[in-house]
Amino acid sequence: MTEIKPLKAGHATWREADAPHSLVLRLPATQPLMMDAGIALSPLTIAYQTYGTLNSEKTNAILVCHALTGDQHVANIHPLTGKPGWWETMVGPGKPVDTDRYFVICSNVLGGCLGTTGPASTNPATGKPYGLDMPMVTIRDMVRAQALLIDHLGIEKLFCVIGGSMGGMQVLQWAASYPERVFCAIPIATAPRHSSQNIAFNEVGRQAVMADPDWIHGQYFESGRLPTKGLAVARMAAHITYLSDEALHRKFGRKLQNKTAPTFSFDADFQIESYLRHQGSTFVERFDANTYLYLTRAMDYFDLAEDYGGTLALAFKDIKTRFCIVSFTSDWLFPTAASRAIVHALNAGGASVSFVEIDTDKGHDAFLLDLPELFTTTSGFLESSARAFGLKEAKRA
Amino acid sequence: MTEIKPLKAGHATWREADAPHSLVLRLPATQPLMMDAGIALSPLTIAYQTYGTLNSEKTNAILVCHALTGDQHVANIHPLTGKPGWWETMVGPGKPVDTDRYFVICSNVLGGCLGTTGPASTNPATGKPYGLDMPMVTIRDMVRAQALLIDHLGIEKLFCVIGGSMGGMQVLQWAASYPERVFCAIPIATAPRHSSQNIAFNEVGRQAVMADPDWIHGQYFESGRLPTKGLAVARMAAHITYLSDEALHRKFGRKLQNKTAPTFSFDADFQIESYLRHQGSTFVERFDANTYLYLTRAMDYFDLAEDYGGTLALAFKDIKTRFCIVSFTSDWLFPTAASRAIVHALNAGGASVSFVEIDTDKGHDAFLLDLPELFTTTSGFLESSARAFGLKEAKRA
Repeated sequence: MTEIKPLKAGHATWREADAPHSLVLRLPATQPLMMDAGIALSPLTIAYQTYGTLNSEKTNAILVCHALTGDQHVANIHPLTGKPGWWETMVGPGKPVDTDRYFVICSNVLGGCLGTTGPASTNPATGKPYGLDMPMVTIRDMVRAQALLIDHLGIEKLFCVIGGSMGGMQVLQWAASYPERVFCAIPIATAPRHSSQNIAFNEVGRQAVMADPDWIHGQYFESGRLPTKGLAVARMAAHITYLSDEALHRKFGRKLQNKTAPTFSFDADFQIESYLRHQGSTFVERFDANTYLYLTRAMDYFDLAEDYGGTLALAFKDIKTRFCIVSFTSDWLFPTAASRAIVHALNAGGASVSFVEIDTDKGHDAFLLDLPELFTTTSGFLESSARAFGLKEAKRA
Repeated sequence: MTEIKPLKAGHATWREADAPHSLVLRLPATQPLMMDAGIALSPLTIAYQTYGTLNSEKTNAILVCHALTGDQHVANIHPLTGKPGWWETMVGPGKPVDTDRYFVICSNVLGGCLGTTGPASTNPATGKPYGLDMPMVTIRDMVRAQALLIDHLGIEKLFCVIGGSMGGMQVLQWAASYPERVFCAIPIATAPRHSSQNIAFNEVGRQAVMADPDWIHGQYFESGRLPTKGLAVARMAAHITYLSDEALHRKFGRKLQNKTAPTFSFDADFQIESYLRHQGSTFVERFDANTYLYLTRAMDYFDLAEDYGGTLALAFKDIKTRFCIVSFTSDWLFPTAASRAIVHALNAGGASVSFVEIDTDKGHDAFLLDLPELFTTTSGFLESSARAFGLKEAKRA
């Protein structure tokens, strides 16, 4: 892994897009990425982090796929925020995804803003950030880019692909696009397609960004201003959908923020208001507004069955990959019914599939939290899959 | 009722605030409204509509309370949109709220923008619109204003108070504040207090409005510009919460808008996007942005139990009012559990209460839709209540 020190405040997101604090794979113009939008993208840069050691047979690799607002900094200090990685509960020495045993890879998705080619990256044709000149990205495009990275690392077959939410969509797409390259797969809190309600919430977020006069049709970098107000509103709206009604009630209820009576004003009287405002204002410091547009659009376009004549089971025909599907009872953004649809499609094809619905009131974001049942499910499934795959035990000191 | 013709396009919302196409009660400065914020508001204007005829005993009056984005135009052509009234399914000759039998009153709420004093009204102290100089409004303040109107009409006791959502909050507040003036009450799809999630969605809407540079801290009228982009985003986000996931799936699913393949752009590819954008853009033509801030805040502040030491049952102690509580199975904004809390509190006080949970997939907005079970529930309850109250049958031609 790359050692990263917290950077000083004011380090700009768009500098990370071109000069990331990560390992970087730069593919030459002779190796373009063929995108679903019909465009050959080149040159392509993929920023990634790794943890643990790849064994000599190159059989112990686990690819982690990140969610909408995640990035490749799974288990190290984040270069922009200085905070721990987003999945340190799950990934590390002795953790469910045990870096003493597995070689863990996570790359910033195509369209991202932490070093993989995306709208904040410099367009070599113009010398300016792509902005809306970046071709539209799909989940399948993200997976194509990841496959190029896996090729580069000399890995023929991944032991496992794992991810939650948009990361789970990539897991499903990996299994459908490259079934022979994935021994086992763990899609968490995800869906085989985005629902109408999902699209609706994403559209509100995009409209909030685009309504910000500092967005300037995506060409904000040149103006020296950023559409932070619009992006903060988008983040606030999305954040509500990541939590359950119960979790909000338990955590905040109607509690007031540092006061004993309402102010009869538009100040953040309630703790939930203060919390949301904080979520909005911190998000804009680490995330590019155009990337938010592109990645939400990629999720909206995701409909795995559509690529197979509308029958999801055909996406997984004769698949040998072992699956462990995980959903959460209180996740109303990617409800258990969506996970069940995946399970049914896999069963129809006779695939090996475990399904665990975890009882929690923590909502969609449960996959990011300290949830013992998620950890035991993951480690147990990986352990049995490792045996089936013939992986050796981890050497403990 | 006041006859209203559709007005030509471009008729400004703020003109309706000062010169409404409605009946108007103007209370002199000697009759201020004592507000929860501790301010005596005067002069007070209340714009209202009536339907049907008040009987000589003044015993057949039904007060309709409107929701957040509703107004007094229950059952007549709307002066700004030219469209039918918002509750013509429910209110009219031979309808469940039968204007052949009952005298129906609906006033624009305090803080509204259709003629009752609110932030778009001219502040007599400055000659300019109040904007944020309007004192914060509560649900109880709205009900106080309505009580002044009922006084003015010479009605001692309302036969019924009925309303959905924020209208339902007013119904509950009427019963708590003036139990002896309400013979029966029908709170629909409402709650005794706003939940953390409800507050969160409202806060997103407010932040969207306030993020619009044309909002100018509420003083936009003088600039000749309106914060329409921010208000449209607020409306879009809120509108998702008014519909159920199932209803969105049934109505829109992933259907594309006037195209056969995605455009790989940020155009409204999906019908749900096009629908939401339309909801946003039409809303801003009839609604004042500051009113949106004030009324969402009034809902956030609503917590009926808090006024009674935290025990909701005490709000309805020894109450004689007959209640019919209605909720909808797919309403996730004001779920059935919230209605049950009202029922339990009423039962604890020995009140007369019917409770109907209507099985529908139409979500929160079901109370505005053509829903036969809602109509039979309402007409049946009104019929039995009318007999108990000694009201005569309607004279039919």
